[in-house]
Amino acid sequence: MVSLIELQRGIADGSLTPQAAIAAARARIAERDPALRAILRVDPDPVIPSTGPLAGIAVGVKDIIDTASMATEMGSSIYAGWRPKADAAIVSRLKKLGAVPLAKTATTAFAGLDPCATVNPHDAARTPGGSSSGSAAAVAAGLLPLALGTQTGGSVIRPAGFCGVAAIKPSFRLLPTVGVKTFSWALDTVGLFGAGIADIARALALITDRPGIDLCAGAPGAMRIGLCRQDFAGAADPDAEAALAQAARAAERAGATVTDLVLPEPFAAAWAKHPIVQDYEARQALAWEYATHRDALPPVVREVLDRAQALTAAEYDEGRRTAHHARRALKELFGAYDAILTYATVGRAPAIATTGDPRFNRLWTLMGVPCVNVPVPGDGLPLGVQVIARFSDDGRALAVARMIEDALARA
Amino acid sequence: MVSLIELQRGIADGSLTPQAAIAAARARIAERDPALRAILRVDPDPVIPSTGPLAGIAVGVKDIIDTASMATEMGSSIYAGWRPKADAAIVSRLKKLGAVPLAKTATTAFAGLDPCATVNPHDAARTPGGSSSGSAAAVAAGLLPLALGTQTGGSVIRPAGFCGVAAIKPSFRLLPTVGVKTFSWALDTVGLFGAGIADIARALALITDRPGIDLCAGAPGAMRIGLCRQDFAGAADPDAEAALAQAARAAERAGATVTDLVLPEPFAAAWAKHPIVQDYEARQALAWEYATHRDALPPVVREVLDRAQALTAAEYDEGRRTAHHARRALKELFGAYDAILTYATVGRAPAIATTGDPRFNRLWTLMGVPCVNVPVPGDGLPLGVQVIARFSDDGRALAVARMIEDALARA
Repeated sequence: MVSLIELQRGIADGSLTPQAAIAAARARIAERDPALRAILRVDPDPVIPSTGPLAGIAVGVKDIIDTASMATEMGSSIYAGWRPKADAAIVSRLKKLGAVPLAKTATTAFAGLDPCATVNPHDAARTPGGSSSGSAAAVAAGLLPLALGTQTGGSVIRPAGFCGVAAIKPSFRLLPTVGVKTFSWALDTVGLFGAGIADIARALALITDRPGIDLCAGAPGAMRIGLCRQDFAGAADPDAEAALAQAARAAERAGATVTDLVLPEPFAAAWAKHPIVQDYEARQALAWEYATHRDALPPVVREVLDRAQALTAAEYDEGRRTAHHARRALKELFGAYDAILTYATVGRAPAIATTGDPRFNRLWTLMGVPCVNVPVPGDGLPLGVQVIARFSDDGRALAVARMIEDALARA
Repeated sequence: MVSLIELQRGIADGSLTPQAAIAAARARIAERDPALRAILRVDPDPVIPSTGPLAGIAVGVKDIIDTASMATEMGSSIYAGWRPKADAAIVSRLKKLGAVPLAKTATTAFAGLDPCATVNPHDAARTPGGSSSGSAAAVAAGLLPLALGTQTGGSVIRPAGFCGVAAIKPSFRLLPTVGVKTFSWALDTVGLFGAGIADIARALALITDRPGIDLCAGAPGAMRIGLCRQDFAGAADPDAEAALAQAARAAERAGATVTDLVLPEPFAAAWAKHPIVQDYEARQALAWEYATHRDALPPVVREVLDRAQALTAAEYDEGRRTAHHARRALKELFGAYDAILTYATVGRAPAIATTGDPRFNRLWTLMGVPCVNVPVPGDGLPLGVQVIARFSDDGRALAVARMIEDALARA
């Protein structure tokens, strides 16, 4: 993988130019992407700023995020060749920092659960996860140092886990969603993929102009970590269980106190309401596509929208109320814990026919709290664990994630 | 003005066909709009459903709301001729109900404070208010029975007050904003203009599939109303003061208890933070326009964005925290009041060089609570008062507004 921080270092000390860094990314895409199918299109002639904190950083942009210079197709034939007028807010921000939004990355249709063509860089018969399939795979295969994804259920953390890359789904609306195709406005969250935790912390701090996010990079001291199995969501695979235990031991070696955390009642209820909130909003957000192009929708998205037609405002309101209660309970809970450690995925990447199961991700998307995938070293296909902190404390989530990443690397 | 409910009655009893109702709207636009400049373009060949609860209802769509069949220009030369791919969610919903989104209505650029060409139907030298200038004027002049606006500061209630039409800025996100140009995602709210309170209640109930919103149409019993002058926002004109007193007396005649309500501390602070939250988000939402077309922005929007470049994340966070505290305090406050009654505008419509001052509107937009403009009958240019209820109780706000509207009419 290509580290954003190492690229920054090379550009700062003059051993690398932004032009050369972007050319190298372009060459890696040309060489490796034909087998990966992570990249949909590359900007033939982008502006390459020679200065700026992210100068020389080539960024992959999930293809539900608007770019004025490249088509934005939402993973769907309905939007074939569609050119938005404006860049999404996050794309404008990256350009202002000197980065180059070089390529559009493959997405499942409308960021739903129908697989797209991208394969897992570690095994072409396996899914890279979804819906941010291309972004996770492109970073994992070393094509790009940074890529944008979005998460409504588990669309950032799950592919990061399956591909073995660092990723953050930040606090709700920490990154702007203007110009991002909506599935559910209460849930859709822009996230980042990178080679390591320090890389995504650096990127998030710069993009949000919040240096504090990058400051806790050192050892954060004696952390209280709640080890959480989300029993209400069903069991994880033995491999994921072992990865969680491995990460917990690493945290303890680094000085953290790790205790079991069984989530009290409101959380199981909130977890169960996630699809109702999501699908009731998706019915509205995708109403034009459903009314005018239903037959062109892929089967899973179509079925979700078919079923969503029957949802009522009362069910939606009840779902939002339940989520609100759980958010308050979570705030209380974080009085006793600095972070929660849980599964990132059910297990290793399954066969390519699905994008995997987001069941250990969706509660946290509904809570709006920052979630980080930490890859867990081992044999075979990648596994990761998920570190979660309180709303708006993205720096803490990243600091704990980095502590675990370091401790795992030293083991 | 043209009443939505009366059109529905005519269509239900067979005295009017949807085709004839739409043709009549088209004829009124052709006849009266040249002097008004409320309408930017009319769909030459729309689908006119013969059934559906809103069959025969011609709707004006503010030109920051996407329509696939008509250009959407955001009130700016930057978007001249721009055709979105998809209808906004609210437009799709209207079509599904049988309505015809017949015309795009004039908006100030990006829903900011620079005036557009529309004049006040009651006096062509006066502003119709903004930013939903065309929607308010089109309903006031009887061109259309229903029009969509948006409010980020006071862009629905203010033009409704100046033009003398009923309008609601509903609870935050009660109506979907997908496909609506963003200025501030924490504030932007889609609203409705109509001939009377019953008309907008009917429309809102149908669009949201929440029949309860339309059920409280009768006398809502002994209501506790807080008469609020928002002293922190400065004084209203004597005319507006008199209209507020007139509405308060009408409410008392209808059986309500009206007591003075001086808002406690957190509200003045929240009111002062509104522009910080708004402009910090606008800087991100309009980053592409600012980076690539700054010179084409009209002066007020450009100046807002120029100044917004200096805002910090810490200032924004402090603004959001202050708003959050005030929202909690407001929830408590509504234990003692069914509704708040306050100014809709500072006074009557000023000269056309501005769109008026939103200072009595912006706190409530930040609070996310439903606000209704009730026109107050009298001589000269229109005046209105604003009725506010707790978050998510839009039906209550409309019921109290209707009670006051009825009592004013009987006076």
